[in-house]
Order: sequence, then C-alpha cells, then structure tokens
Amino acid sequence: MTLPIRYEFIKACKQSGARLGILHTPHGSFETPMFMPVGTLATVKTMSPEDLKEMGAGVILSNTYHLWLRPGEDIVKGAGGLHGFMNWDQGILTDSGGFQVFSLSDMRRIEEEGVHFRNHLNGDRLFLSPEKAMEIQNALGSDIMMAFDECPPYPATFEYMKKSVERTSRWAERCLKAHKRKDVQGLFGIVQGGEYQELRELSAKDLVSLDFPGYAVGGLSVGEPKDVMNRVLEFTTPLLPADKPRYLMGVGSADSLIDGSIRGIDMFDCVLPTRIARNGTLMTSNGRLNIKNAKFERDYGPLDEHCDCYTCRNYSRAYIRHLIKANETFGIRLTTYHNLYFLLNLMKQVRQAIREDRLLDFREEFFEQYGFNRPNAKNF
Amino acid sequence: MTLPIRYEFIKACKQSGARLGILHTPHGSFETPMFMPVGTLATVKTMSPEDLKEMGAGVILSNTYHLWLRPGEDIVKGAGGLHGFMNWDQGILTDSGGFQVFSLSDMRRIEEEGVHFRNHLNGDRLFLSPEKAMEIQNALGSDIMMAFDECPPYPATFEYMKKSVERTSRWAERCLKAHKRKDVQGLFGIVQGGEYQELRELSAKDLVSLDFPGYAVGGLSVGEPKDVMNRVLEFTTPLLPADKPRYLMGVGSADSLIDGSIRGIDMFDCVLPTRIARNGTLMTSNGRLNIKNAKFERDYGPLDEHCDCYTCRNYSRAYIRHLIKANETFGIRLTTYHNLYFLLNLMKQVRQAIREDRLLDFREEFFEQYGFNRPNAKNF
Repeated sequence: MTLPIRYEFIKACKQSGARLGILHTPHGSFETPMFMPVGTLATVKTMSPEDLKEMGAGVILSNTYHLWLRPGEDIVKGAGGLHGFMNWDQGILTDSGGFQVFSLSDMRRIEEEGVHFRNHLNGDRLFLSPEKAMEIQNALGSDIMMAFDECPPYPATFEYMKKSVERTSRWAERCLKAHKRKDVQGLFGIVQGGEYQELRELSAKDLVSLDFPGYAVGGLSVGEPKDVMNRVLEFTTPLLPADKPRYLMGVGSADSLIDGSIRGIDMFDCVLPTRIARNGTLMTSNGRLNIKNAKFERDYGPLDEHCDCYTCRNYSRAYIRHLIKANETFGIRLTTYHNLYFLLNLMKQVRQAIREDRLLDFREEFFEQYGFNRPNAKNF
Repeated sequence: MTLPIRYEFIKACKQSGARLGILHTPHGSFETPMFMPVGTLATVKTMSPEDLKEMGAGVILSNTYHLWLRPGEDIVKGAGGLHGFMNWDQGILTDSGGFQVFSLSDMRRIEEEGVHFRNHLNGDRLFLSPEKAMEIQNALGSDIMMAFDECPPYPATFEYMKKSVERTSRWAERCLKAHKRKDVQGLFGIVQGGEYQELRELSAKDLVSLDFPGYAVGGLSVGEPKDVMNRVLEFTTPLLPADKPRYLMGVGSADSLIDGSIRGIDMFDCVLPTRIARNGTLMTSNGRLNIKNAKFERDYGPLDEHCDCYTCRNYSRAYIRHLIKANETFGIRLTTYHNLYFLLNLMKQVRQAIREDRLLDFREEFFEQYGFNRPNAKNF
C-alpha cells in the first residue's frame, strides 16, 4: 500500500539547518516549510477557495470538533467529504478535536477510555475518544488526520505530564488501530511532554515506534516564553525521523514561523492572522498596525508598501479603515486576505532563504525591519 | 459642453413598449433596462468589485447620506472620489440623501431652505439642503447625481402632496444651480406626486422644463399595492422625454423589474436582494427559498438548478445552509452573489425579450415558473 502522505526532502539550509521539502498529499503537493490557514467550520472566514489559491495556500486546516457539532460529519461525508463540501480540491488537514475539548468545553472528565464533556454551544453531554476522533475524521475525508491526544495545561508538573504523555501514547496506538482509511488519509502522531526533555524523548520514542507518516509537536504556544518554545524544538525535532514531515501546532506569529523553520519544522497553523484581521490588525513588513487608528483616516497608501497582495495593490488604508470602522464585511475580506498573504509570502521567503543557505541572515534582516529587535518590541 | 450622461435608444419591444437602450457615462456604458446593486457605504456588502463585474454589474448605487456621515465626503474626495476610494472603475449613481433624511433620522424639521435633523448614529444636529446635497455629491464624484427632493409619506393627502411637489421643483432648480461639475457628473431630476396623476403631471412638467439629463420616478415602492405602482408608471413615464433615461427608485423585486420595464423604465435599484441574502433568503427561478429551512440540511443540489452563477456552479444548499446557520461570512458572500446575479440575469433576459418583441410572453412564463400566478402567492 502506497502511503497517502509522502515527504520529499529537497535540501537543508547550510547556515541554519532548516529543511526545504515537498509534501505530497492525495489532493496535490505543497512546498515546506508552509503555513496552513485555518478554516474552522469548513471555511477560512470570509475567503473563497479561489482567494486562497491566488495567495498561494496549498493546504488548509479544519477543525474536527467544530464540524462534528456543526453541521455534523455525516452531512460533510454526504457531500463527498470536506473537499466536495467546501469546494476545495487541495490539501486539508484536520485536527483531532482534542485541543477544543480541553480548551472550549465545560465540565470535562478525562478517563482512559476518552473525555466526557459538554458541547460549548448547547451544553449537551458528549464523549470523544481516540476511536471517535478517527471515525469523525474518516468521515470528513481530510488528507492529513491528527491523533487524539491529551492536551495538558501549562504549566504542568513532571508527574502530571508524564502520565499525560503515557496516555497520549496509548491513545495514539488506539488511533492507528481505529483509522479505517489508511490508503487515502495519513494519520500524524503528536509528540507531547511540555518543556521536559525527558518526556519529549519518551513521547517521541513511543510515537516513532508506531511509524506514523508524519509527526506534530504539540503543547507549545500555550503561554510559555518564546525561548522555551525554541529550546523544546531544539531537543525535540532531532528525535523525529528525517523522512517524515514535522508540524508545529497552533503557531502563526512571524518570528515563530522563522524560528520554527530554523529548528526543522515543516508545517505551521494558527488562527492568529485571520483572527486579528477581523479586528483591523495587520501584519506588515514594518510590524503590526491597527487600521482603526485615527492617523490612517486620510492615508491613501497601501497597508504595506512592500506588499503586492490583492488588498495592497488595490485599496488604501483610508478605505480599509472606513470599512472596518463601519463593520463592513468587505473590510474583513481585505484584511484577512492581506494577513494570510503576508504569512504565506513570508514562508516563500523562508524557503528561498533555505535554498540560498542564508536563513539566519534572512531572520536578522526580517527581525530588524519588523521591529522584533527593538527594545520593548511587542512579543508577536 | 458634452453631456456626461447620454441615453442611446436602441429599440422598443413591439409587444410591450419596453425600451432597450445603452446608457453612456464617464465610466463606461451599460445596457438598459438595468438593475443597480446598492453599495451603501462605498461597498456592496461582502462583494468585491471583481465579483460585481463578473456577474455583469456595470453600474452601482451608493448613498450620499451614509457617506456624508461615514467616512465624510472629503475623505472620499481625497482618494479621487468614490471610484478611486472603492476601486470601482464603472458607473456610480449616488442618491441625494433625501430618502435617508426622511426615513432614518429623528426629529426632522422641513423648511424651505432644507431639512434639519439628527444624525442616526450619534444624534448630532445636521442640516441638508439642495446646495449641500450637490456639494457632497460633487465631492463624491459619482457619474449620476440625484436632485435633493422631499420624500412625502405614504399615503399623503392631495394638498400635502401638491405643496411637496412644488417644493421639490423649487429644490430641483436650486440643485441645478448649485451643481458645480456638470461636465463630468450628470444630475437627474426626481418626479414626485404620489398616486395623483395631476401632481405627477405637474412635477414632470416642472422638471422637464429644467432639462435634466435623466429623470427618476420617486415616491413609489413605499407601501402602495403593486397595481397602484404600475398605474402611476403608466401615466408618468409618457410625460418624460424619450431621449433621456428613466430610473425607478428603490424597486428590486423580480415582478416589479419586469412590470417597470414594460412601462418604460430603464434603471432600477434596491437593497432587497442583498438584504434578504444576509438572512439566507434566495431568489430562484422557482420563487424564494430560505436556506435555513431544515429540509435543505442534506440537499446537495445548487440553490437554483436553472442558475449558472458562481455560487450555484460550486456550492450546495447543504454547505450554504451550514455557513448561514453558523453565521459564517462566506455564506453571505455566496447568497449575496446569487441574488444579485439572479436580478442582473433577469434584466438580461428582459433585454433579450425586448429584442425579440416578446416581453409580455416572457413575463407570463417567468411569473408562472416563479409562482407569482399561484393563488396566495407571496407579494414579492
């Protein structure tokens, strides 16, 4: 049986060690390192599939928990799966629902069998387990599925984390057994362990022995300082097989995309660019700006003078400010487009820098212009 | 001086008398009869200019009152007018603000000089007059401006209406005098008079003597029965010059677009298709449907099996229902696109029927399929 997900290694950056590659999926291939826009409810908020293709997104993420509740995975399956349902013919990754169960739901109770909790929309009692998470994702038909893991709180004690890691390994094995469509959907394991090197090693050893077609690093970007995240990546990614893709979950700030790539990560996702866009906050090559600021009232320049996206080629700060202030949806379309383009274009620059063996230099240049190097720079 | 707005008559339908023509503006030409999508705040809600062009919109309407309050006409002027501000290079018509002053604002006081009222957003005292309405529209730079008229209540007594018509005539003359950019913006007069034939005649006579480049029929679609609207059009449009365009304000239901065309109307506008789209109500060739209805939950067919719009070619009722139920903006994009396309396509069919001298036959066929002929048909 051919694996549905195949990682093609192209080269490593001689300066940084970052990897350039191509991930092949049943719905097309994309270059890595790559940022994946999030389409929680089978739509990347305000964007059309054509918008996403135009900006260079070859893979998107959708949320199992949310689609399970609305509209229900059987309705998605009836449309031929997520690809048919949402009219997206390229790669789709679905998470396992685990993160939402641990972050959104009330009154959860974790047992060996799975997690009891209440629907965050209507309070109904629900139960999610490794088997159920596989069943839903099999119905959704994503190209990449994620194992159902326990998402521990941050910070957690070594003892708590060790038990959690061991359970996540047992659940991973159950996921593999329950996964019914191994020919067309690839299942990734998730390495947990918090900031404890010993536990990351334990988790990676367990999961690698199960031979997943790809691995995620979970439990980061949960409140820890950036240098902790970087240190954890430094001792975790070398534990993962070089011929499989590595996915850092829930990370989407510009600095972390670069720093993660330098530490051997191939895939990232985050709601950050789309969420802040809806509030009028833009990522630009000179750092963030909030378009609602009064100083942009008569500013007829583009959001970012170095950007060539649809928004920046056609619309002014004054117009976008007007739309956002007036709660006009088209304003959110324009800011969402720009922020996603900004991160996708950043990853394109990262890949080019890897090709040219100069990712550390690129990092310095980008951080300088973006303002990360300024004293009191905001932590973004 | 060349007039900025020129109506080119092509032919009359031998069966119905409806007119086929082309309206030439400083920003391109469009065939008539035509429906104009409404972009209240310099955006047709959720749509991009590219979406509008793709669906065949060659002219849109924007609202002077709303743009005056937000972002202010000087900010629009600084961007090179509305066309530059909103990135729309085709025709734009602006209303005068009169209708909003009479329908939205509180505590209005009508004087000969103009209307005192309060801003509906913050309660500030404001004053709008013929001169001010021209000044704002000159700053906005629309291709077609509308005279500032008094919008009388419905129903109104003959005496009230007569005074109102006479004032509207005096205001129209002041508008013509105050209009500073006659070389690049065409000003239309608005015929009022309610359902009183004598007053429509008086109003038309006054306005035609002022020689506007186009005329609107105002004060209809304000609550009167459809047959009253049709009767008023029957005795009003013959009073207007055959070589000038005729615009029926605020009308956008499918039946009225056909019935208005039959009575010699060339242009229509209404928020109806976009407003109901946001609530999940769709115009289809079999009548209206509300996509929130439970029966569409697993309906994988298009909104309208006879429609070839972007939405109907690519998305199912089940998907759109899911998006609308979950308050996802992309759902509103899809329903808005469809409803606007439906009316623009209807007008295309109306023009084709005029070409073929069979608009009355087309009316019968359309009404039959749409369900207007059914007993207890909804009045839409």
